[in-house]
Amino acid sequence: MESEVLLYEGKAKKLFKTNEEDVLRVLYLDQATALNGLKKDAVSGKGALNNQITAHLFQRLADKNVPSHFLQLVSKHEQLIRAVTMIPLEVVVRNTAAGSFSKRLGIEEGTKLPKPIVEFYYKEDRLDDPFINDDHVFYLGLATKEELDLIKKLALQVNAALLEIFASIQIQLIDFKIEIGKTKKGELLLADEISPDTCRLWDMGTNEHLDKDVYRRDLGDIVPVYEEVLNRLEKENSTCI
Amino acid sequence: MESEVLLYEGKAKKLFKTNEEDVLRVLYLDQATALNGLKKDAVSGKGALNNQITAHLFQRLADKNVPSHFLQLVSKHEQLIRAVTMIPLEVVVRNTAAGSFSKRLGIEEGTKLPKPIVEFYYKEDRLDDPFINDDHVFYLGLATKEELDLIKKLALQVNAALLEIFASIQIQLIDFKIEIGKTKKGELLLADEISPDTCRLWDMGTNEHLDKDVYRRDLGDIVPVYEEVLNRLEKENSTCI
Repeated sequence: MESEVLLYEGKAKKLFKTNEEDVLRVLYLDQATALNGLKKDAVSGKGALNNQITAHLFQRLADKNVPSHFLQLVSKHEQLIRAVTMIPLEVVVRNTAAGSFSKRLGIEEGTKLPKPIVEFYYKEDRLDDPFINDDHVFYLGLATKEELDLIKKLALQVNAALLEIFASIQIQLIDFKIEIGKTKKGELLLADEISPDTCRLWDMGTNEHLDKDVYRRDLGDIVPVYEEVLNRLEKENSTCI
Repeated sequence: MESEVLLYEGKAKKLFKTNEEDVLRVLYLDQATALNGLKKDAVSGKGALNNQITAHLFQRLADKNVPSHFLQLVSKHEQLIRAVTMIPLEVVVRNTAAGSFSKRLGIEEGTKLPKPIVEFYYKEDRLDDPFINDDHVFYLGLATKEELDLIKKLALQVNAALLEIFASIQIQLIDFKIEIGKTKKGELLLADEISPDTCRLWDMGTNEHLDKDVYRRDLGDIVPVYEEVLNRLEKENSTCI
């Protein structure tokens, strides 16, 4: 039986200890937030969807030799992960202009980028997660030069793998955010989640948003949208077996 | 006699053609601006001070093998420069936390940085000169990887030289902004100006601002402050001869 010692509570997840020292249990919450927590709503069903989508994607990434902290799905709302120390860095990879990138550089949303662009944000609520550069990363002690090179490489590997996965289910991967954890041995692992909360996903035919922008921009109910993403992923995977 | 063909008028300078194809004449204006032009005032004497300070610093930098577009001082308000194509990039080097860096990272103004930090801003009024990273520089076509490496190296060379020059006149170089020009042959040169408009300069004893923050933050009249910087530079230089 799992212990109920709560280690951490975030905006969308709770993290519990387990009986194994290096294993944690994540409970995905039925909560949606945006604008650094200023917008917040209970959304029944969202936790289960993001948990299952994340588990699915981390398994598919592992098949493509991209290591992550994911161990196994234990229920619709929960997964087991390796205990890692999170680096307070949001690593964003962009394939198409959207969101803050479009605003910053005055590039129309939907403009394809000739090469993926990697950005770093310092995960610090008090500062509103500011956009930073490599020198800032070193100054803040978030990573060494060698680690940051590995993080960029990992981010681009994840991008290449996700582009392929989503293209096969008729979804354009516009951009996404990942977070990195560090094991006790200093190994860097993909961590946190990959879900419509952390990716911009557009339907390939209609350019319809299949992601958190539906919530951020008040475009409708996110549950059927996130369900659509999970259904496509599961259907695609079953045809491969 | 110089021709009067105006090539460009900026917030603080006018650029004229000369009879020589590769030589331009810069007229420094008696105008102070801040907040991307939202704050604007006529300040009698400022143009002559910045022109002379810039000329002085570009000559001192040349003595330290840092190339620039500067050719010669022609009057209190004017200097001749090599014609270069300006890269729309503001290259900022920081030795001590201040201004937007302090705000972005929540670091108290005046905190010494263990190593100089280099930042890039895209010089585009319409976008409010946004802070960008290396990938953005490449995407915008502002510089190649090789050019950007050279620009960073040049920025750090300028920093090392300016730190020494200012330290010798009891001034702390907190941070500064430079711009880079490209010759027809593709050579990268330090260009634009280096003055109290583009540097943060604090008196070493009192931490008093000897720069544009006096104007930005309404701390008093900038003319005596800029005069103080020019006087210290000229006194220092004369003792060297």
